[in-house]
Amino acid sequence: MNIQLLLTGNELMNGDVVDSNSAMVADELKQLGLQIQRKVTVGDAMDVLVEELQHLSKSADMLLVNGGLGPTTDDLTAEALAQLCGVALAEHPEARAHLQHWADTRGLVLNAANLKQAMLPAGARVVPNSRGTAVGFAMHHNNCEIICTPGVPHELRAMLNETIVPQLDGQVSEAQKLLLNRYHTFGQGESNLQQWIADKLPDFPAEVELGFRAGAPTLEVKIQTPAQLADIHQQACQQLTALIGDYIVAQESGSLAATLIDELKRRNQTITFAESCTGGLISAMLTAEPGSSAVFEAGFITYANRIKSQLVGVNPADLEQHGAVSEPVVRQMAEGALAASGADYVAAVSGIAGPEGGSEEKPVGTVWIAWGSTGNIHTARLHYPYRRKMFQTMVAGAALDLVRREIMNIDSAPRYLKDRQHPVTKIR
Amino acid sequence: MNIQLLLTGNELMNGDVVDSNSAMVADELKQLGLQIQRKVTVGDAMDVLVEELQHLSKSADMLLVNGGLGPTTDDLTAEALAQLCGVALAEHPEARAHLQHWADTRGLVLNAANLKQAMLPAGARVVPNSRGTAVGFAMHHNNCEIICTPGVPHELRAMLNETIVPQLDGQVSEAQKLLLNRYHTFGQGESNLQQWIADKLPDFPAEVELGFRAGAPTLEVKIQTPAQLADIHQQACQQLTALIGDYIVAQESGSLAATLIDELKRRNQTITFAESCTGGLISAMLTAEPGSSAVFEAGFITYANRIKSQLVGVNPADLEQHGAVSEPVVRQMAEGALAASGADYVAAVSGIAGPEGGSEEKPVGTVWIAWGSTGNIHTARLHYPYRRKMFQTMVAGAALDLVRREIMNIDSAPRYLKDRQHPVTKIR
Repeated sequence: MNIQLLLTGNELMNGDVVDSNSAMVADELKQLGLQIQRKVTVGDAMDVLVEELQHLSKSADMLLVNGGLGPTTDDLTAEALAQLCGVALAEHPEARAHLQHWADTRGLVLNAANLKQAMLPAGARVVPNSRGTAVGFAMHHNNCEIICTPGVPHELRAMLNETIVPQLDGQVSEAQKLLLNRYHTFGQGESNLQQWIADKLPDFPAEVELGFRAGAPTLEVKIQTPAQLADIHQQACQQLTALIGDYIVAQESGSLAATLIDELKRRNQTITFAESCTGGLISAMLTAEPGSSAVFEAGFITYANRIKSQLVGVNPADLEQHGAVSEPVVRQMAEGALAASGADYVAAVSGIAGPEGGSEEKPVGTVWIAWGSTGNIHTARLHYPYRRKMFQTMVAGAALDLVRREIMNIDSAPRYLKDRQHPVTKIR
Repeated sequence: MNIQLLLTGNELMNGDVVDSNSAMVADELKQLGLQIQRKVTVGDAMDVLVEELQHLSKSADMLLVNGGLGPTTDDLTAEALAQLCGVALAEHPEARAHLQHWADTRGLVLNAANLKQAMLPAGARVVPNSRGTAVGFAMHHNNCEIICTPGVPHELRAMLNETIVPQLDGQVSEAQKLLLNRYHTFGQGESNLQQWIADKLPDFPAEVELGFRAGAPTLEVKIQTPAQLADIHQQACQQLTALIGDYIVAQESGSLAATLIDELKRRNQTITFAESCTGGLISAMLTAEPGSSAVFEAGFITYANRIKSQLVGVNPADLEQHGAVSEPVVRQMAEGALAASGADYVAAVSGIAGPEGGSEEKPVGTVWIAWGSTGNIHTARLHYPYRRKMFQTMVAGAALDLVRREIMNIDSAPRYLKDRQHPVTKIR
């Protein structure tokens, strides 16, 4: 099935908005084994829209149009589709009823701008919108199903899940569908992982496709297999998790922080952080997740040396002798945070985020991390030669991952501890 | 000038990568008064690429092709352009020399994959790439200048700034260019600001275009005027800043946190934070900026009640009587953080980030903020009815903005303090 996408909106053309809707559509179609063949983006101009609808509908079996359903005069999609199909706009009872219901439940009165959203091409089929005022609508033209959808992301997502994907599902053979598993990994880059898999899994089934999506601090690895090969898919998932399982920090819609919270909750234990170079980011990453209050009570942002001594009891003599970015200091930060908070686990970091503050011995990107529990503190020196914000993100990821490994009793010497021990020259 | 954009890459079609390059190109062209008329994205397939190049070059004066210049067999742009123009691929001396220089400076030997990047359509003009191995190249076809550029964002940006924009600059009349000023605002939504400007500036010059780009926690407002109307542009900037100046937290590439750091540095003063519901995010936003160590020494993440007493001296009786989300508690958090850190300024927050923990009296989204200096602490109750991460982001923004207003002696009762005092039902 040839599926194409037409995105409309001046804000998509002038650089004010980055389009994430098309990635969402591609992701939703993937499970059906479907992909988008072409996507075209144009501004809000009637002649351009009609011409593009005509052009794309000639080669597509299904054309998804996204955007331009709103109440303002810039929103031209219904009018453009009517022109294309040579029909008039007409008030559509189903759309009108939807708008009326929407207004009634909010105690509002529909105005002229609202009512414009019930004016659809004559003969169009309504596609329900469970999240907003603008219904979607569909027409046939040039032997192509043209479906117009709202630009608001959560409205589009609901329409895909509730109507469009189920409709497509009925048109796709089981053989065409894909099985898809997602693994979020920390600590290995894409090229490293690819090489590793190629070296260690020479018999990895050829029917299985591996995909990678770079995030920060994690990297998503996807396993995709034709749905009729369920055994092979399962086998590939087992092979991969056996090989890189240590580096998998979450699956599907999970996250590193959510995994850590779940593991701590299960053990009825708590965690604390003492942060210098990350300035609160580790704690912020943990507390961005719902439920974090069950496992996190206190965090110490000890940016200045004086505060490292005052809040978490670092010996001023060690600060003087070894500097803030040193093993003794980060160890004492961890021990002090444990003592002050009464938490079961800790991570502490002290490093040089840059752009200033580096030296030959300790270049920008150097960080000391300490993690563990009372009487069982580990330390490591790492080097993340990235720009300031990426450095902070990766250090926060490493701190969370090292505690995760400790708590779950997973290999406490992952490759990245060794690989990143010494400064390298690469600056990303 | 009709400029179009062709983006290539399977990763752009399958949802693995969100395209931000086209927004970058649009932004760079804006200053010349130029915009992209159409952008098309296709996967890595030769026939599709050649067909699309043919189709777009018929209507465009300039076609920017982005992606597909790499060393792998998926990278088809040079071959596609050669097919389109009916010429062969040939090793281009300038491209070869660029690759050789790149390898020499890194002590590397060029391999076959590298050398593929010197094979360009015969007769192509090289467009230098100062940041990577893949040179760009340009050809004329269908009376259209086709320029092929690398997909790596920082390579594309350099090529735009160093070659493509200067080249276009010579083809654009001064009259066509735009003057552009950007203001980052906090505290007013786009529709509020638009209404306000419409009401208060009825004589705002019609030749000046206002643009908005939603961010979190700030909203960017752009003023664009044809370059020959420099006086009118300046007048519009003055009118706007006179009206909404209080809400402008940074200009051009600045940020709210960077402004706060600059103001504190100038006064040789420091700041601290006591954070409950934001869990470290306020401190993380400040320390994400270079230079923050000059003004920030300590942060207190007091997530649990016990820690609020222990770290920043909140009276347990007040926690018991008023609850953690209350005026007395947040005021004592602020006073305690000032005392413990010795900082000159403080912000403290305690709220209900959700999704759990709300009550009828204090629904999810409620937050108490305290800010000021020793002996001069202000407090306010606000309501941000958003999802957890957006709530945290907006609360952090409000904390930073309220301190900014205090330090700079700007109106300490901005509209949002009043507008957001009481819970509203809208959930975004």
